[in-house]
Amino acid sequence: MKKAVVLLSGGLDSATALAVAINAGYAVYCLSCSYGQRHVQELKAASNIAIHYKAFDHKVISFDLGNWGGSALTDAQLKIPKGTLSPEIPITYVPARNMIFLSFALSYAEVLHAEAIFIGVNALDYSGYPDCRPEFIAAFQEASRLGTKCGVEASNVINIKTPLIGLKKSDIILLAKQLDVPLHLTRSCYDDGIKPCGSCDSCLLRAQGFREASLDDPAL
Amino acid sequence: MKKAVVLLSGGLDSATALAVAINAGYAVYCLSCSYGQRHVQELKAASNIAIHYKAFDHKVISFDLGNWGGSALTDAQLKIPKGTLSPEIPITYVPARNMIFLSFALSYAEVLHAEAIFIGVNALDYSGYPDCRPEFIAAFQEASRLGTKCGVEASNVINIKTPLIGLKKSDIILLAKQLDVPLHLTRSCYDDGIKPCGSCDSCLLRAQGFREASLDDPAL
Repeated sequence: MKKAVVLLSGGLDSATALAVAINAGYAVYCLSCSYGQRHVQELKAASNIAIHYKAFDHKVISFDLGNWGGSALTDAQLKIPKGTLSPEIPITYVPARNMIFLSFALSYAEVLHAEAIFIGVNALDYSGYPDCRPEFIAAFQEASRLGTKCGVEASNVINIKTPLIGLKKSDIILLAKQLDVPLHLTRSCYDDGIKPCGSCDSCLLRAQGFREASLDDPAL
Repeated sequence: MKKAVVLLSGGLDSATALAVAINAGYAVYCLSCSYGQRHVQELKAASNIAIHYKAFDHKVISFDLGNWGGSALTDAQLKIPKGTLSPEIPITYVPARNMIFLSFALSYAEVLHAEAIFIGVNALDYSGYPDCRPEFIAAFQEASRLGTKCGVEASNVINIKTPLIGLKKSDIILLAKQLDVPLHLTRSCYDDGIKPCGSCDSCLLRAQGFREASLDDPAL
């Protein structure tokens, strides 16, 4: 059975990417990152989602980007913006986050002899993070090929799969419904309260998506 | 003063890359990775070298690649090869290690508004690791540009500098001597004994370099 590493944050995008991977016949190995984010609730969500899907394994790799901060998600001194979606790259941008996440996924995938890495990035109805764009993913794919033993020996090219990259948030939600994703288990909020705050960028984008899809959010 | 992040393993290559960065006028911020390597002695060496050079800062980021192993450096079940240099990529290869290290350096550099990242990779007299080759570094550079806020806004392109990439080990040693690098503080061995083992790939390459440079290794 072909294997895939799925980057699982605990949000609705990564849960949907996981469902797509399973639907495509992959044995899934989930990977979550405990990176010093203030919203550690998402890691509990990731665990619940991996259990729901009976993933072959679920690894959590820990490191602390609070070492240098620079983002409202990793530096308690910076405030999470609330109430409006900015047209600019917001302060919740975490420098090189997806590069780091994908690098760990690549390492894990190479050890597993996995064929693919799934990541739930999307570049429509998103927060403007540069590391969610297709051009970044393509460049990472090329670096992966050149920087790994399996890539150099061409024994196993690890494909970076981004099944949601061209979808609007409402389309992702409709796809999730179609694939029976346990959306009630997902968690998108940047704050760490028991309930999602409802006003951070991530909550606003999620609410807008459910509104446009004419569905209620089962996690609320 | 322009800033650079220098990946500092504690070995002679990274110490020399650090000296090159200082010589080029950069304020240096050292970054070491505690990645679950068996040879944690190298981290003590890195600390001593950073202190010697009065680096502006020295961060150590910790994560555990022993989570999935796959390398003799991170999996205690696998033996470090001794006594011969293999023409193939050896079992000391750590999947995606330089991708991970460079990703962290990129994150740190973006927060610091640094102009450059220095890494002491070299592709002659080396262990055949694919992530030490110029084509990998070039691909990583492109992914960095596309995946960061500073790259996208073109406010600050972070250059990946590989001053040793075209040098033989003996040439690196001669450069280190010329720059007065404290080679007695460096540590290259893959084992974690008080003294270097003298027979792992890394010790063999180092010994060969000193022999070709007609110098004694001050760390022995």
